[in-house]
Amino acid sequence: MKPLLTSLIMALCPIFALAAIKTEPIQYKVGDTTFEGVLYYDDADSAPRRAVLVCHEWWGLNDYSKKRAEQLAQMGYVAFAVDVYGKGVQAKTQEEAARMATALRSGDRATLRARINAALTALKARKEVDPKKIAAIGYCFGGTTALELARSGADILGVVGFHAGLSTPNPADAKNIKGKVLICHGGDDPFVPMPEVNAFLDEMKAAKVDYQLNIYSDAVHTFTNPAAGNDPSKGSAYNAQADHRSFEEMKQFFAELFH
Amino acid sequence: MKPLLTSLIMALCPIFALAAIKTEPIQYKVGDTTFEGVLYYDDADSAPRRAVLVCHEWWGLNDYSKKRAEQLAQMGYVAFAVDVYGKGVQAKTQEEAARMATALRSGDRATLRARINAALTALKARKEVDPKKIAAIGYCFGGTTALELARSGADILGVVGFHAGLSTPNPADAKNIKGKVLICHGGDDPFVPMPEVNAFLDEMKAAKVDYQLNIYSDAVHTFTNPAAGNDPSKGSAYNAQADHRSFEEMKQFFAELFH
Repeated sequence: MKPLLTSLIMALCPIFALAAIKTEPIQYKVGDTTFEGVLYYDDADSAPRRAVLVCHEWWGLNDYSKKRAEQLAQMGYVAFAVDVYGKGVQAKTQEEAARMATALRSGDRATLRARINAALTALKARKEVDPKKIAAIGYCFGGTTALELARSGADILGVVGFHAGLSTPNPADAKNIKGKVLICHGGDDPFVPMPEVNAFLDEMKAAKVDYQLNIYSDAVHTFTNPAAGNDPSKGSAYNAQADHRSFEEMKQFFAELFH
Repeated sequence: MKPLLTSLIMALCPIFALAAIKTEPIQYKVGDTTFEGVLYYDDADSAPRRAVLVCHEWWGLNDYSKKRAEQLAQMGYVAFAVDVYGKGVQAKTQEEAARMATALRSGDRATLRARINAALTALKARKEVDPKKIAAIGYCFGGTTALELARSGADILGVVGFHAGLSTPNPADAKNIKGKVLICHGGDDPFVPMPEVNAFLDEMKAAKVDYQLNIYSDAVHTFTNPAAGNDPSKGSAYNAQADHRSFEEMKQFFAELFH
């Protein structure tokens, strides 16, 4: 009976079976520029499986999106912390971050689309990944990136944007969105104010997108990232309740997408 | 080893331990009027425990809110399907329902407050209930009722409104709200349009209420109730996805309230 009991505990209590996560840099190119993301997965699992692109904040690919990718890998996903700035490119100041993000989110967004689609193609090529079971998530500018992937018509199951920039120069592109959308938004976000949220709702409704919008009280921009500090008057700050709730809601959304 | 295995399965898999739910009519009075709700609870559990008031749609206390109360009792709560119309009073037509609901939600709302607070008092008096661990939920007009209970300053942990009427003649009363608020709203609800939702957000923000607002695409009024049918063009219709998601989100919210 003992082995059965052990198996039962292992099956019912995933905490006893914490995976050893493998980390692997993955390069991809758009034109002459090389990008490098990091793949996280449990290599004890050999079957092609569900996967998530994790899109970085305006700082570039740093420890924050890597940590989120690792969290997802612990949950059984192949998680790809992508790079849309170029291999090793990270902003050192707020001004530099704003300049780099603005360059990609303004204009026709063709460059941003090409880069995030190249990341998706690289992910789909992996033997660990079931190419029909991919979602994308993103934080701040990364939420905009994940939404842009969906607006480009990419064949993904869904997108989650956390304190994402929601505006687009091309609202009619929402008609290209194939998957479902979940937006987790801080009710006091000064960088994504309610007129932008309402315009986004209008965009989603006009294109009949399957969306959900969650608005959290007392949360400003960057509410999921402890590095944003604890002073909401700065416009960006961590909010433990909104972080916890939005992560749980993402899990429930994924359970639905990847059923 | 066998008894241990059985206990382990019982502990980890609540489905093996589906409760036998006791049903009990409970009367309470406001002035000369008698009201009668129905209490649902598992009488195998003898300790005072967490409890939920379930507030009815504008039809009055009918099978729908009773079914929801029974669901909550199966989940371990003492659930009270309340009555704010009077013992046995149910609307027979849409016009009658509209008239009865409007009479209570217009004006100063003192009558509605008195009735829902009388229901809360009756629930608190039960030996099965921990009076410090009570929440309220409501559907349509019942969501308005649950919010009115909070706006009256009642000592409850939180409120969930499903396709709730959000407006109030007294927005300043939001300052009385002691618990947390979760609103699950249909993005295409013609009876609770976006200007009403935005006014509610302003009300919550001005009073620094701990709120969350979830908006579901393609959902109109009454989206949790299969009896509303499947034609959204009527303004009320069932939406399985929004029903499922909002119920899961309520469970997560309760896990936080009753931790």
